[in-house]
Amino acid sequence: MLDGKNIIGYNRTQRGKVTFKTINPILNRENETVFYEASKEEVEEAVKLAHHAAPFYAESGREVRAAFLRGIASEISALGDDLIGLYCSESGLPEGRAKGERARTIGQLELYAGLVEDGSYVQPSIDTAKPDRKPNPKVDLRKMMVPIGPVVVFGASNFPLAYSSAGGDTASALAAGCPVIVKGHPMHAGTGNMVSSAIAKAARNLNLPEGVFSHLNSKGHEVGEALVKHPQVKAVGFTGSHGGGRALFNIAASRKEPIPVFAEMGSVNPVILLPEILKKEKEKWAGTIAGSVTLGSGQFCTNPGILMGIKNQNLDLFSDLLSQEILKVVPSSMLHPDIADKFNKGKEQARLQKGTEVIAEHTQPVEANVGRPTILKVKASEFRENSKLHQEVFGPFSLLVECRDIEELERSVALIEGQLTASVIGTPEEMEGYDFLLRQLKDRVGRLIFNGVPTGVEVCASMHHGGPYPATTDSRFTAVGEDAINRWLRPVCFQNCPDSLLPPALQNANPLNLLRRLDGRLSHDKV
Amino acid sequence: MLDGKNIIGYNRTQRGKVTFKTINPILNRENETVFYEASKEEVEEAVKLAHHAAPFYAESGREVRAAFLRGIASEISALGDDLIGLYCSESGLPEGRAKGERARTIGQLELYAGLVEDGSYVQPSIDTAKPDRKPNPKVDLRKMMVPIGPVVVFGASNFPLAYSSAGGDTASALAAGCPVIVKGHPMHAGTGNMVSSAIAKAARNLNLPEGVFSHLNSKGHEVGEALVKHPQVKAVGFTGSHGGGRALFNIAASRKEPIPVFAEMGSVNPVILLPEILKKEKEKWAGTIAGSVTLGSGQFCTNPGILMGIKNQNLDLFSDLLSQEILKVVPSSMLHPDIADKFNKGKEQARLQKGTEVIAEHTQPVEANVGRPTILKVKASEFRENSKLHQEVFGPFSLLVECRDIEELERSVALIEGQLTASVIGTPEEMEGYDFLLRQLKDRVGRLIFNGVPTGVEVCASMHHGGPYPATTDSRFTAVGEDAINRWLRPVCFQNCPDSLLPPALQNANPLNLLRRLDGRLSHDKV
Repeated sequence: MLDGKNIIGYNRTQRGKVTFKTINPILNRENETVFYEASKEEVEEAVKLAHHAAPFYAESGREVRAAFLRGIASEISALGDDLIGLYCSESGLPEGRAKGERARTIGQLELYAGLVEDGSYVQPSIDTAKPDRKPNPKVDLRKMMVPIGPVVVFGASNFPLAYSSAGGDTASALAAGCPVIVKGHPMHAGTGNMVSSAIAKAARNLNLPEGVFSHLNSKGHEVGEALVKHPQVKAVGFTGSHGGGRALFNIAASRKEPIPVFAEMGSVNPVILLPEILKKEKEKWAGTIAGSVTLGSGQFCTNPGILMGIKNQNLDLFSDLLSQEILKVVPSSMLHPDIADKFNKGKEQARLQKGTEVIAEHTQPVEANVGRPTILKVKASEFRENSKLHQEVFGPFSLLVECRDIEELERSVALIEGQLTASVIGTPEEMEGYDFLLRQLKDRVGRLIFNGVPTGVEVCASMHHGGPYPATTDSRFTAVGEDAINRWLRPVCFQNCPDSLLPPALQNANPLNLLRRLDGRLSHDKV
Repeated sequence: MLDGKNIIGYNRTQRGKVTFKTINPILNRENETVFYEASKEEVEEAVKLAHHAAPFYAESGREVRAAFLRGIASEISALGDDLIGLYCSESGLPEGRAKGERARTIGQLELYAGLVEDGSYVQPSIDTAKPDRKPNPKVDLRKMMVPIGPVVVFGASNFPLAYSSAGGDTASALAAGCPVIVKGHPMHAGTGNMVSSAIAKAARNLNLPEGVFSHLNSKGHEVGEALVKHPQVKAVGFTGSHGGGRALFNIAASRKEPIPVFAEMGSVNPVILLPEILKKEKEKWAGTIAGSVTLGSGQFCTNPGILMGIKNQNLDLFSDLLSQEILKVVPSSMLHPDIADKFNKGKEQARLQKGTEVIAEHTQPVEANVGRPTILKVKASEFRENSKLHQEVFGPFSLLVECRDIEELERSVALIEGQLTASVIGTPEEMEGYDFLLRQLKDRVGRLIFNGVPTGVEVCASMHHGGPYPATTDSRFTAVGEDAINRWLRPVCFQNCPDSLLPPALQNANPLNLLRRLDGRLSHDKV
């Protein structure tokens, strides 16, 4: 249902005075629905419901939670083409992308449902008593992960489905047993509204405690700030800009009770082109990189914003080929006039920096909000001295950094801040000779890619979508894949607890048949 | 070696101008050795060495790191009675405690050595490629934990061995592969000096990169602040007061690159006495609780600072018995005149709060710095309205909160902040009837203890020594047991990496024979 209201537990409310509309960036005009920004009272109500729902939802069985996640997936499927149409009208993204992202969203919900059913994510650990130990008897200790409490999720501008209302943060937090309050992204408030209706319906179908999920509209910063400041909120998930993520981190850190914020704040994802491979595979990599830079109008946190290579004839030829490939791409709409505007300003700022030169840029007229793919180049010596060139320009943009030699390449890599990814393009033989470079890259990233581009984030257990600051605010956690659930869990230990009072995961009989660490050994054994 | 100098890598330096001495609290006079507070340059030097050592130490094999940890243990043992004598002269704690703590320290070092040798703490995870998958091929992804970088450890006043220079934080960080810089606690600077010499010797014996360990003296806050602010420091471990831990957390959170701080800041560790058990086991629990309150002069973060029960004849009788037991305890020296002073002031402040009444207090004359065990009582109605009574008085002190009925007990528990532990003393039958109370307690603690006191923290895999704020600054991690290593690790993912360039833990042949998550299933298989 698309009505522009806030979804607070099982109620739909519009008590605030501020309203807003979304924009169709392709038509460059407002969409029709009026959205009501949540009032202070509505924020309070959503948190209160989540707080009261928390202990009951935490103790709902794994079947219930898995059914909830699968129920959300099936309610989203049931929205059919209405959702796809709305998604496209609010994002300017093509239908294929909308359907792909819906499939990913559903896939993520099912992934976490499976994880919950399997149950081992609670990491049960049992050390049995040794009453005869000298000098002191050993007590019985049993530990498992429990949900951290109500989680606030910020919808991401560039993933209206997969990192918003029912996206990875929400799915992993609901799987963990935490109620979720989504602060919807204003650019796709309708998509959020419709998906959140589906979530509320799935919750209602299972008679879950009211408040296990709420969705609040907001245009400005107030709703998000009020949520992160609220004493009953216990953790935050965010995907977006560095400015936004850091602001939330600062608010959370200055609370009376600080809470964890997992903010994934994007990255320039350097791609290092080694010399030998450019002798043979210039065409291939020019095409692949052009595709990665321009995919989704460059609006991915894994967009490759910096390319680095050693200046020679092959790099020049690669640069020419890249230019040709970039000019072949049909420029496409960006998500929103504000994003298009910021892209143009960021590009312009980069172009004004000393020593930069345009390799490729579309110059023909385009519709409003279309992002013209652009590649600049700069000498490494200029790059190293100018930290403005190290910053992300969100959109179809990349900067080719030309290094004199391997030594200058290494020195340039050493200046790069924390990243989600880095890629190394090289022959297997030459890579063997660059172990210092590889180690330097590894120390700066969450994911090190060999002969591949950073776009395309596989959702699986071995994925790490995170990285040292400023890529994220906590390098110890991932936003994608099974392990993302760990952000919303904390351990609790039971000492000498009567069996009947233990959670099932820790009971002697192992009624959930979990793989447990039992006196230091993994097993399915009963105690 | 005891020379009062800073230990910076393999050098011993004294370039600072500020000096200080430790105090023998039993004799109430200064010990002889003069300690030199680290200068800014010495801080810089220690961090620089740690930063340069980090990549090499990170890639030292598991045999090397295990040998280092065992080497430290054996060098500490070799210090023999000199260490024990020095420990006692700086802490006022008895020889038995010194020897017990040394044994625990050595046990922890050996525990982490075993963990490193086993190797599975790196949590290897492999998802193999599916080149034929439609619509997109699946890449090969392999993930493992790597060290986070140089760690700063703050020595704890109340654990000169087990939570200081070679204590749990240091041992777990060195095991993880992180260089460690210890900011020694000024109250036991000599013990730190001697133990750190042993660590440096163990490092030298193995030719480890210089800077893998340093130990800096400090009297004031400057050295600690400079360390936590330093851009090349990547994480912090702290055990101590709420004021100290929160100050470090704030500094770390306001850095350009925020870093994780694991601060364990103590707790009042409430003990709930249910009515039925007090009918039968008053004497037993009066004795046990008196022992726990006064153990080590009450200077443990797990000291039970609040007792709660339902006011009736049995609780009154228990209170009388507890008073008798407390008065039987011979009061002992506190760690330092400052701690004794703070204890007396805290006790006095509690006594001045409305409605408090003394149940037990030693009144006979004592030597300087001796802490007189004290128990107060107060009605729950007064307790609930006065947050000053919820705060820790560090030392042999506890407050008995008398509730009218179970409903008031539950309402009082609901006001308690995050705790390391809570204990419930009751018959198995009556506990079954208090599931709401148990759930409330579980939501507030890291460890829930049944029919036991909180002192005595077992070092094992299932221990959780942590808890919601203000017990710690990050409830997701523990300071004790195997899992404490996770504080110093972050994941890195390798995408399509040639086998020869992968770390051994992720190579196809599984040369370390680790248990790995391979396409979602735990196994020792080769790929």
